[in-house]
Amino acid sequence: MTQERNITRIDAFTYREILSRDPIILIPVGSIEQHGPHMPLGVDTLLSTTMAELTAESIGAYVGPTVSTGYKSQQRSGGGNHIIGSFGFDAETVIGVCRTLVRELWRHGARRIVFINGHYENYQFIYEGVDLALRDLAGRQDPPRVMMVSYWDFVTDEVIAELYPDGFPGWDVEHGGVMETSLMLRHFPDLVRMDRVMDLPAAELPAYDLLPVDASLTPESGCLSSAQASTEAKGRILTDSVVEEMGRAILERF
Amino acid sequence: MTQERNITRIDAFTYREILSRDPIILIPVGSIEQHGPHMPLGVDTLLSTTMAELTAESIGAYVGPTVSTGYKSQQRSGGGNHIIGSFGFDAETVIGVCRTLVRELWRHGARRIVFINGHYENYQFIYEGVDLALRDLAGRQDPPRVMMVSYWDFVTDEVIAELYPDGFPGWDVEHGGVMETSLMLRHFPDLVRMDRVMDLPAAELPAYDLLPVDASLTPESGCLSSAQASTEAKGRILTDSVVEEMGRAILERF
Amino acid sequence: MTQERNITRIDAFTYREILSRDPIILIPVGSIEQHGPHMPLGVDTLLSTTMAELTAESIGAYVGPTVSTGYKSQQRSGGGNHIIGSFGFDAETVIGVCRTLVRELWRHGARRIVFINGHYENYQFIYEGVDLALRDLAGRQDPPRVMMVSYWDFVTDEVIAELYPDGFPGWDVEHGGVMETSLMLRHFPDLVRMDRVMDLPAAELPAYDLLPVDASLTPESGCLSSAQASTEAKGRILTDSVVEEMGRAILERF
Amino acid sequence: MTQERNITRIDAFTYREILSRDPIILIPVGSIEQHGPHMPLGVDTLLSTTMAELTAESIGAYVGPTVSTGYKSQQRSGGGNHIIGSFGFDAETVIGVCRTLVRELWRHGARRIVFINGHYENYQFIYEGVDLALRDLAGRQDPPRVMMVSYWDFVTDEVIAELYPDGFPGWDVEHGGVMETSLMLRHFPDLVRMDRVMDLPAAELPAYDLLPVDASLTPESGCLSSAQASTEAKGRILTDSVVEEMGRAILERF
Amino acid sequence: MTQERNITRIDAFTYREILSRDPIILIPVGSIEQHGPHMPLGVDTLLSTTMAELTAESIGAYVGPTVSTGYKSQQRSGGGNHIIGSFGFDAETVIGVCRTLVRELWRHGARRIVFINGHYENYQFIYEGVDLALRDLAGRQDPPRVMMVSYWDFVTDEVIAELYPDGFPGWDVEHGGVMETSLMLRHFPDLVRMDRVMDLPAAELPAYDLLPVDASLTPESGCLSSAQASTEAKGRILTDSVVEEMGRAILERF
Amino acid sequence: MTQERNITRIDAFTYREILSRDPIILIPVGSIEQHGPHMPLGVDTLLSTTMAELTAESIGAYVGPTVSTGYKSQQRSGGGNHIIGSFGFDAETVIGVCRTLVRELWRHGARRIVFINGHYENYQFIYEGVDLALRDLAGRQDPPRVMMVSYWDFVTDEVIAELYPDGFPGWDVEHGGVMETSLMLRHFPDLVRMDRVMDLPAAELPAYDLLPVDASLTPESGCLSSAQASTEAKGRILTDSVVEEMGRAILERF
Repeated sequence: MTQERNITRIDAFTYREILSRDPIILIPVGSIEQHGPHMPLGVDTLLSTTMAELTAESIGAYVGPTVSTGYKSQQRSGGGNHIIGSFGFDAETVIGVCRTLVRELWRHGARRIVFINGHYENYQFIYEGVDLALRDLAGRQDPPRVMMVSYWDFVTDEVIAELYPDGFPGWDVEHGGVMETSLMLRHFPDLVRMDRVMDLPAAELPAYDLLPVDASLTPESGCLSSAQASTEAKGRILTDSVVEEMGRAILERF
Repeated sequence: MTQERNITRIDAFTYREILSRDPIILIPVGSIEQHGPHMPLGVDTLLSTTMAELTAESIGAYVGPTVSTGYKSQQRSGGGNHIIGSFGFDAETVIGVCRTLVRELWRHGARRIVFINGHYENYQFIYEGVDLALRDLAGRQDPPRVMMVSYWDFVTDEVIAELYPDGFPGWDVEHGGVMETSLMLRHFPDLVRMDRVMDLPAAELPAYDLLPVDASLTPESGCLSSAQASTEAKGRILTDSVVEEMGRAILERF
Repeated sequence: MTQERNITRIDAFTYREILSRDPIILIPVGSIEQHGPHMPLGVDTLLSTTMAELTAESIGAYVGPTVSTGYKSQQRSGGGNHIIGSFGFDAETVIGVCRTLVRELWRHGARRIVFINGHYENYQFIYEGVDLALRDLAGRQDPPRVMMVSYWDFVTDEVIAELYPDGFPGWDVEHGGVMETSLMLRHFPDLVRMDRVMDLPAAELPAYDLLPVDASLTPESGCLSSAQASTEAKGRILTDSVVEEMGRAILERF
Repeated sequence: MTQERNITRIDAFTYREILSRDPIILIPVGSIEQHGPHMPLGVDTLLSTTMAELTAESIGAYVGPTVSTGYKSQQRSGGGNHIIGSFGFDAETVIGVCRTLVRELWRHGARRIVFINGHYENYQFIYEGVDLALRDLAGRQDPPRVMMVSYWDFVTDEVIAELYPDGFPGWDVEHGGVMETSLMLRHFPDLVRMDRVMDLPAAELPAYDLLPVDASLTPESGCLSSAQASTEAKGRILTDSVVEEMGRAILERF
Repeated sequence: MTQERNITRIDAFTYREILSRDPIILIPVGSIEQHGPHMPLGVDTLLSTTMAELTAESIGAYVGPTVSTGYKSQQRSGGGNHIIGSFGFDAETVIGVCRTLVRELWRHGARRIVFINGHYENYQFIYEGVDLALRDLAGRQDPPRVMMVSYWDFVTDEVIAELYPDGFPGWDVEHGGVMETSLMLRHFPDLVRMDRVMDLPAAELPAYDLLPVDASLTPESGCLSSAQASTEAKGRILTDSVVEEMGRAILERF
Repeated sequence: MTQERNITRIDAFTYREILSRDPIILIPVGSIEQHGPHMPLGVDTLLSTTMAELTAESIGAYVGPTVSTGYKSQQRSGGGNHIIGSFGFDAETVIGVCRTLVRELWRHGARRIVFINGHYENYQFIYEGVDLALRDLAGRQDPPRVMMVSYWDFVTDEVIAELYPDGFPGWDVEHGGVMETSLMLRHFPDLVRMDRVMDLPAAELPAYDLLPVDASLTPESGCLSSAQASTEAKGRILTDSVVEEMGRAILERF
């Protein structure tokens, strides 16, 4: 990256100059969650931050503090929070973190904010945090506009068709699968151990959740589909698709 | 209904007899939300309760208090909470209500509880309420098992293919559309005014949320797809599919 | 009822027309609570809603969503929350529900709101919910005025003297007694089983609460006084008194 | 007082000895609230503490920390929280303080706790605090039993007849009236200014609350009935009645 | 004291006159906490109130309600909350009490408020309560300015040198030591028992906290340093220093 | 680092093996806060994580997820939260994050946890989070022991004397000063711009806090003392001192 885009690595004086130019601020939202035997606990935090940084570079935006206090892993999208290695934060905490970020960025002068989600279960709690922050700011001068996205929603149908020739199982069961693993191979190859991938059939999960979780429904790997077909090249294609489409959507809206 | 299945219409002495037989208790979760010009604000509450009652009758279960304090309508699944007529409760309240229901039913002796959701936006907050209740009950004797479902997830692919010959748009944009309207025609015909249906194209919503909402993205009707093709017969087919499949899933699990 | 007065059975377009005429909105607040062997758990919810609907019809008001998440039954007014069949919600939840209703009705345009309580224990928590909502709306345009009543406070002394010739024991020990049972006989006769009334002496409760409850102080019936003398005619008299006096008070104030 | 009964004036070593003998601990609960032109803001705190101390002396109990964070003054029992001089704490705070006191006293070894309320509006929030504390302690060893009283509920009918020969208006409108003023004359004569009493007719308050308050309904004095007839002698009679009856009730129960 | 300065002993009419003159209001913040075998549990509450009253007299200010719901005693500043006799309130409660006091005093018309802390562990929670209150009042007319102090921070270096000739151990380990005991001897001699002082070496506490506490690290007395050298004369010197310096700081700022 | 010690870069299978050996887990706690014109917003997060990682390597421990949701910057230790660039999270959120981490690590099997604070204002809120987590786990099997430290408390007096030959101003005013800057030069030299250091006199801050902050009391740089004398060599000395002493303290205790 030729120019630093992540404000946590920028000093406050420069940050104030940036703020004076009405920047778009992208907030990555991840988790600390098991991703099988072949990837580290920080996958969602790493990938949401990377997607945000690349998009920021592409559209001239900046990246704010990454949220790593993700909501509890659920069985049908993350294997379940009973698994050792997943850190599940309460709704109240996830909401509170996002609410503060909006309020503080507004105080700093930001008026265009985008939450870029990288952990399936977070979405509704990001939404609530943003909604409460805007309620907090009701009647205050010049409240911000806030977009909320999950980065995988910008992978185009063409890319999906190309990367999943045998049919696309859905983003929910992509947990620890081809998409996340390919992206990690592309951006953090040192943190992936393809030799440890457990090539198991995709999870067959029912149309409901059960608590306490029936642990037998999650594959032994903790991944909901196999990462075997992952490649760095697929990670590149996915990245390009997300960065281009997500950037386009942000610019169209803001 | 030959035998009363809704405990709010049953006296406490009879309720205690029922509890002594280890019943399955179904909790409907709805909302008070605009559903266009042709259906009342209570649609989600009415339908989730009806689906629960019919399923209860079918499998010998009972229906607990209906939750009507639904989460905020979101634009991509309910038109948006800016619309007058939708009552959006905070995450904290939805979570608190569900959490209490689990705890109180457990105190009463119930050990098998199913939340039957009828308002798309509720799901994650039901989940959190259940999770917190189970944490509250950790270490207590004989904690309950809890299922969480959204009733439309039990409409079979066959029924979908039959009812949506031109392609199925997804349950999220079904808000105020053919499914809900047909079900209302089947169960509450007096509350539907087909002559007031606004036959507008389905909403074309982006892959993100925006707050404050861009109100222009929601069709003028407040419905995300047209209800024009709704019929009482479709409502019957949908009901049969849901009651059979949802009942089967509950019995298999419990 | 010749014209629908309950907004949960009214569509959003009609609701908006109603709102444009500055209506008075009545919010029933009940509970799910044991009411002895002869009446169902939903008594407080049913009666508060009916009282609200009849009063609405009488004075041209409308009825909003019924709150059924009532506060915990207390021994001296409801037998106690240890009894199986009573669902006791925490103060925080009751407060949150009422707070949201005021805030959402204000957003919709309502400026005159009345909470009509039908569960003795709720009152202080309704009050707090309203107070917090008005704090939320401080500085916002045109905040609402809110009345809070318990419907039995409008039974006139004449009616009390007529209906309780042997002396009136007080509304608190009326739980499951003559007033509630007569009202149920008047409005929901199918849900009352007079043959199951347990004709026990009125509870003699001390001048204090005790937690954990001394269960022996609550009559075996769960009712604090006998319902034996209940009749549909008394229910009619009580209804007329409440509807007339409560309606008069609302109109005088608003 | 010959022996110190208030633990805030006792050292921790002596306190531990007391605790080892399974004492009854009385917790006064007051407020900081306007009480007209003739009495100070601290009346409820002073009187609840004095009643607790005298009762403790009478029955060999001890007095714990006084709660002065009272709930909001309400118009029908305290004139209303709009009046300058009343400090109204949120339900959450009153609940939290009482909840902690039960939990901490239990940790110290206390198993018999009595809350002695001296501010009408507090009662339901004390109750909730106690209920939540007992839930916190569920499953822990030897949880406490807790009584909750308002001290005026122990004034006997005979005393009421003697002191209010023209008829008793009810404890709610006694705010700043004959009972509280007589008790203050008895116990804190230096803090009463009988020459400043405003001898106004008793407030005529409606059967409902209104928020925002209609300030015109509260007498100019802030008192709901006149204190003109107050005497130190009446304070003595009231004190004797309360201490004897309240003490008896506590001993009977504990 | 020639003129009453504590508003809890002042009537509401006089209080309103005071408020009309833009007074400085001092809020004492204490705790109920063990202070060894020679002093009562209420030390922090008594001393913070006395310091506030004397300072108020000195600078013409007034004293508001004393906060006695102190935060949990911590081992390195108060011996630890495991000790029987200490009442530790949760952060949430301490914050809520302080937040309300600011909000209510502002509603009454106060614009200059000072929190005078007398319990080491409270400080950060007072700060948060004030910060949240100011957020609550954002956009409201004429919000207050609030100072926060711990009274011992105004003891001058000269006084420290004089009173601690062998070296000053720091205010944190002064818990139950020479400063607090001397101040109690000066202002509440009846509540001090010098014959019960345990003359133990000062606690040697590590540079960290441990939970659960290692009880062996707190001296048997519960005091972190010996009170043996305490005298009424030292209490007088300390008082004079605090009242003068704290008063000066308040006047300079306000 | 020869072996990965940060669990966010370790896969879940390896993590489970680590957990089975009863590891010590170190949790860094930082902030996103202005640190003058010469250092980035993430200083506290970067340094607490680095100190934790080096200590982990030294004593064979592991590092858990870094907390970056730091409490509000206060003027006397961080310049004040009014400064653009500082993100101040509410007490509730900081507490909630730490509470969850303890609970989740316990669920994973960790029994020895150390919070390593790198942002002065956090400490009391970490403490509360840990205390509440241990309350949550009361009665559960094998609850954890938790240490809480601020890393600078392990710099020895010898090192202080060596590095601050003109006298040590205290860790609170070290914000953005010689210690933090030297440590950044040692570990993140690319993120420091010594040419941008503003060589201003140390802040002279009063013995109290004021809200709203008097912005004129914070030096223009946002730093409380000058970083001019910072060197990479000092950073090395400081690091060695902290890692050795902190490691020793942890091992002695655990």
